Amino acid sequence: MIEHPTVIRPEAHAVFKTGAMGKATLFESPRLLVGLNAFEPGQTHALHAHQGMDKVYHVLEGQGLFLLEGREVPMRAGDLLVAPEGVPHGVRNSSQSRLVVLAILAPGPARRTDRGDFAV
Amino acid sequence: MIEHPTVIRPEAHAVFKTGAMGKATLFESPRLLVGLNAFEPGQTHALHAHQGMDKVYHVLEGQGLFLLEGREVPMRAGDLLVAPEGVPHGVRNSSQSRLVVLAILAPGPARRTDRGDFAV
Repeated sequence: MIEHPTVIRPEAHAVFKTGAMGKATLFESPRLLVGLNAFEPGQTHALHAHQGMDKVYHVLEGQGLFLLEGREVPMRAGDLLVAPEGVPHGVRNSSQSRLVVLAILAPGPARRTDRGDFAV
Repeated sequence: MIEHPTVIRPEAHAVFKTGAMGKATLFESPRLLVGLNAFEPGQTHALHAHQGMDKVYHVLEGQGLFLLEGREVPMRAGDLLVAPEGVPHGVRNSSQSRLVVLAILAPGPARRTDRGDFAV
Protein backbone atom coordinates (compact mmCIF):
# COMPACT_ATOMS: atom_id res chain seq x y z
CA MET A 1 0.00 0.00 0.00
CA ILE A 2 1.28 3.48 -0.83
CA GLU A 3 1.68 5.88 2.09
CA HIS A 4 0.26 9.30 1.23
CA PRO A 5 1.24 12.03 0.59
CA THR A 6 3.97 10.63 -1.71
CA VAL A 7 4.89 11.83 -5.20
CA ILE A 8 4.40 8.88 -7.56
CA ARG A 9 4.52 8.06 -11.26
CA PRO A 10 1.11 6.40 -11.38
CA GLU A 11 1.70 4.28 -14.49
CA ALA A 12 4.57 2.53 -12.71
CA HIS A 13 1.95 0.85 -10.49
CA ALA A 14 -0.06 -0.69 -13.34
CA VAL A 15 -0.82 -4.40 -13.02
CA PHE A 16 -1.54 -6.34 -16.21
CA LYS A 17 -3.47 -9.60 -16.35
CA THR A 18 -3.90 -12.18 -19.07
CA GLY A 19 -7.53 -12.67 -20.07
CA ALA A 20 -8.92 -9.47 -18.56
CA MET A 21 -8.15 -5.88 -17.63
CA GLY A 22 -5.76 -5.57 -14.70
CA LYS A 23 -6.60 -3.35 -11.74
CA ALA A 24 -4.53 -1.62 -9.08
CA THR A 25 -5.49 0.76 -6.29
CA LEU A 26 -3.37 3.85 -5.54
CA PHE A 27 -5.63 5.38 -2.89
CA GLU A 28 -8.95 4.52 -1.34
CA SER A 29 -11.23 6.20 1.16
CA PRO A 30 -15.00 6.44 1.65
CA ARG A 31 -14.80 9.64 -0.45
CA LEU A 32 -12.52 8.63 -3.29
CA LEU A 33 -10.92 5.73 -5.15
CA VAL A 34 -7.82 6.37 -7.29
CA GLY A 35 -7.04 3.30 -9.37
CA LEU A 36 -5.37 2.08 -12.53
CA ASN A 37 -6.93 0.06 -15.33
CA ALA A 38 -4.33 -1.77 -17.42
CA PHE A 39 -5.17 -3.26 -20.80
CA GLU A 40 -3.16 -5.63 -22.95
CA PRO A 41 -3.87 -5.27 -26.69
CA GLY A 42 -7.44 -6.41 -27.37
CA GLN A 43 -8.67 -6.23 -23.77
CA THR A 44 -11.92 -4.39 -22.99
CA HIS A 45 -13.76 -3.07 -19.95
CA ALA A 46 -17.35 -3.33 -21.18
CA LEU A 47 -19.84 -0.49 -21.06
CA HIS A 48 -21.10 -0.05 -17.50
CA ALA A 49 -22.43 2.71 -15.25
CA HIS A 50 -22.11 3.66 -11.58
CA GLN A 51 -25.21 4.90 -9.80
CA GLY A 52 -24.40 7.78 -7.46
CA MET A 53 -20.69 7.80 -8.37
CA ASP A 54 -18.80 10.10 -10.76
CA LYS A 55 -15.93 8.59 -12.73
CA VAL A 56 -12.87 10.27 -14.25
CA TYR A 57 -10.67 8.50 -16.78
CA HIS A 58 -7.23 9.94 -17.53
CA VAL A 59 -5.18 8.11 -20.17
CA LEU A 60 -1.59 7.70 -18.97
CA GLU A 61 -0.01 5.47 -21.60
CA GLY A 62 -1.01 4.12 -25.01
CA GLN A 63 -4.16 4.63 -26.99
CA GLY A 64 -7.52 3.01 -27.64
CA LEU A 65 -11.24 3.75 -27.48
CA PHE A 66 -13.58 5.12 -24.87
CA LEU A 67 -16.87 3.23 -25.07
CA LEU A 68 -19.90 5.45 -24.62
CA GLU A 69 -23.57 4.86 -25.22
CA GLY A 70 -23.96 4.28 -28.98
CA ARG A 71 -20.43 5.40 -29.90
CA GLU A 72 -16.73 4.65 -29.55
CA VAL A 73 -14.35 7.60 -29.23
CA PRO A 74 -10.61 7.40 -30.01
CA MET A 75 -8.36 8.36 -27.09
CA ARG A 76 -4.65 8.56 -26.37
CA ALA A 77 -2.25 9.42 -23.55
CA GLY A 78 -3.14 12.78 -22.01
CA ASP A 79 -6.87 12.59 -22.76
CA LEU A 80 -9.39 12.94 -19.94
CA LEU A 81 -13.05 11.88 -19.82
CA VAL A 82 -15.60 12.48 -17.07
CA ALA A 83 -18.54 10.06 -16.86
CA PRO A 84 -20.99 11.65 -14.40
CA GLU A 85 -23.02 9.27 -12.24
CA GLY A 86 -25.29 6.99 -14.28
CA VAL A 87 -23.51 7.68 -17.61
CA PRO A 88 -22.40 4.42 -19.30
CA HIS A 89 -18.68 4.20 -20.07
CA GLY A 90 -16.00 1.65 -20.86
CA VAL A 91 -12.60 1.19 -22.49
CA ARG A 92 -11.23 -0.93 -25.31
CA ASN A 93 -7.57 -1.32 -26.15
CA SER A 94 -7.89 -1.40 -29.92
CA SER A 95 -4.14 -0.86 -30.36
CA GLN A 96 -1.14 -3.18 -30.59
CA SER A 97 0.48 -1.78 -27.42
CA ARG A 98 -0.36 -1.65 -23.74
CA LEU A 99 -2.88 0.91 -22.50
CA VAL A 100 -2.91 2.36 -18.97
CA VAL A 101 -5.78 4.53 -17.72
CA LEU A 102 -6.09 6.29 -14.37
CA ALA A 103 -9.61 5.68 -13.03
CA ILE A 104 -10.99 7.91 -10.29
CA LEU A 105 -14.34 7.24 -8.64
CA ALA A 106 -16.17 9.47 -6.13
CA PRO A 107 -17.41 8.55 -3.67
CA GLY A 108 -15.35 5.40 -3.19
CA PRO A 109 -17.33 2.22 -3.83
CA ALA A 110 -18.49 0.48 -0.65
CA ARG A 111 -16.48 -2.65 -0.07
CA ARG A 112 -18.55 -5.80 -0.13
CA THR A 113 -17.77 -8.17 2.69
CA ASP A 114 -18.43 -11.32 0.65
CA ARG A 115 -15.66 -10.65 -1.88
CA GLY A 116 -12.68 -8.33 -1.92
CA ASP A 117 -12.81 -6.88 -5.40
CA PHE A 118 -15.16 -4.56 -7.22
CA ALA A 119 -15.47 -3.00 -10.63
CA VAL A 120 -13.70 0.30 -11.18
CA MET B 1 -19.13 24.75 -19.39
CA ILE B 2 -17.99 21.42 -20.77
CA GLU B 3 -20.72 18.90 -21.56
CA HIS B 4 -19.78 15.44 -20.24
CA PRO B 5 -18.90 12.83 -21.32
CA THR B 6 -16.46 14.52 -23.74
CA VAL B 7 -12.85 13.58 -24.43
CA ILE B 8 -10.72 16.61 -23.57
CA ARG B 9 -7.07 17.63 -23.32
CA PRO B 10 -7.34 19.09 -19.82
CA GLU B 11 -4.32 21.40 -20.02
CA ALA B 12 -5.96 23.22 -22.94
CA HIS B 13 -8.48 24.62 -20.44
CA ALA B 14 -5.90 26.18 -18.11
CA VAL B 15 -6.51 29.80 -17.17
CA PHE B 16 -3.51 31.88 -16.07
CA LYS B 17 -3.73 35.02 -13.97
CA THR B 18 -1.24 37.72 -13.14
CA GLY B 19 -0.54 38.02 -9.44
CA ALA B 20 -1.98 34.68 -8.34
CA MET B 21 -2.63 31.09 -9.38
CA GLY B 22 -5.31 30.77 -12.06
CA LYS B 23 -8.20 28.35 -11.60
CA ALA B 24 -10.58 26.60 -14.00
CA THR B 25 -13.28 24.02 -13.41
CA LEU B 26 -13.67 21.04 -15.75
CA PHE B 27 -16.40 19.22 -13.83
CA GLU B 28 -18.27 19.80 -10.61
CA SER B 29 -20.86 17.84 -8.65
CA PRO B 30 -21.65 17.36 -4.95
CA ARG B 31 -19.35 14.29 -5.14
CA LEU B 32 -16.39 15.60 -7.10
CA LEU B 33 -14.59 18.68 -8.37
CA VAL B 34 -12.16 18.35 -11.30
CA GLY B 35 -10.21 21.56 -11.74
CA LEU B 36 -7.01 23.06 -13.05
CA ASN B 37 -4.47 25.13 -11.14
CA ALA B 38 -2.28 27.21 -13.45
CA PHE B 39 0.94 28.86 -12.23
CA GLU B 40 3.09 31.45 -13.91
CA PRO B 41 6.77 31.25 -12.90
CA GLY B 42 7.10 32.19 -9.22
CA GLN B 43 3.41 31.76 -8.32
CA THR B 44 2.47 29.70 -5.25
CA HIS B 45 -0.63 28.10 -3.77
CA ALA B 46 0.26 28.21 -0.08
CA LEU B 47 0.12 25.22 2.22
CA HIS B 48 -3.52 24.50 3.16
CA ALA B 49 -5.70 21.55 4.14
CA HIS B 50 -9.27 20.43 3.44
CA GLN B 51 -11.20 18.91 6.30
CA GLY B 52 -13.29 15.95 5.14
CA MET B 53 -12.09 16.20 1.52
CA ASP B 54 -9.42 14.17 -0.27
CA LYS B 55 -7.30 15.93 -2.88
CA VAL B 56 -5.44 14.54 -5.89
CA TYR B 57 -2.82 16.59 -7.76
CA HIS B 58 -1.69 15.40 -11.17
CA VAL B 59 0.97 17.49 -12.88
CA LEU B 60 0.06 18.05 -16.54
CA GLU B 61 2.68 20.50 -17.78
CA GLY B 62 5.90 21.96 -16.41
CA GLN B 63 7.64 21.38 -13.11
CA GLY B 64 7.91 22.83 -9.62
CA LEU B 65 7.47 21.87 -5.98
CA PHE B 66 4.76 20.21 -3.96
CA LEU B 67 4.55 21.92 -0.57
CA LEU B 68 3.98 19.50 2.28
CA GLU B 69 4.25 19.89 6.04
CA GLY B 70 7.92 20.65 6.75
CA ARG B 71 9.20 19.81 3.27
CA GLU B 72 9.12 20.76 -0.39
CA VAL B 73 9.17 17.95 -2.96
CA PRO B 74 10.25 18.42 -6.59
CA MET B 75 7.61 17.42 -9.15
CA ARG B 76 7.22 17.41 -12.91
CA ALA B 77 4.66 16.53 -15.59
CA GLY B 78 3.25 13.05 -15.02
CA ASP B 79 3.66 13.06 -11.24
CA LEU B 80 0.67 12.42 -8.99
CA LEU B 81 0.19 13.24 -5.32
CA VAL B 82 -2.72 12.33 -3.03
CA ALA B 83 -3.33 14.55 0.00
CA PRO B 84 -5.87 12.70 2.15
CA GLU B 85 -8.32 14.82 4.12
CA GLY B 86 -6.63 17.06 6.66
CA VAL B 87 -3.14 16.69 5.14
CA PRO B 88 -1.57 20.09 4.37
CA HIS B 89 -0.50 20.57 0.75
CA GLY B 90 0.35 23.31 -1.73
CA VAL B 91 2.24 24.07 -4.94
CA ARG B 92 5.03 26.42 -5.95
CA ASN B 93 6.16 27.06 -9.48
CA SER B 94 9.89 27.35 -8.83
CA SER B 95 10.66 27.03 -12.55
CA GLN B 96 11.01 29.53 -15.39
CA SER B 97 8.07 28.07 -17.36
CA ARG B 98 4.34 27.69 -16.85
CA LEU B 99 3.07 24.92 -14.58
CA VAL B 100 -0.37 23.28 -14.94
CA VAL B 101 -1.72 20.88 -12.31
CA LEU B 102 -4.98 18.92 -12.40
CA ALA B 103 -6.64 19.25 -8.98
CA ILE B 104 -9.36 16.80 -7.97
CA LEU B 105 -11.32 17.16 -4.75
CA ALA B 106 -13.81 14.70 -3.27
CA PRO B 107 -16.42 15.39 -2.17
CA GLY B 108 -16.93 18.62 -4.11
CA PRO B 109 -16.66 21.74 -1.94
CA ALA B 110 -20.04 23.20 -1.00
CA ARG B 111 -20.66 26.41 -2.89
CA ARG B 112 -20.99 29.42 -0.67
CA THR B 113 -23.93 31.61 -1.53
CA ASP B 114 -22.19 34.87 -0.57
CA ARG B 115 -19.43 34.54 -3.19
CA GLY B 116 -19.00 32.39 -6.23
CA ASP B 117 -15.45 31.17 -5.90
CA PHE B 118 -13.68 28.79 -3.58
CA ALA B 119 -10.18 27.45 -3.04
CA VAL B 120 -9.26 24.30 -4.93
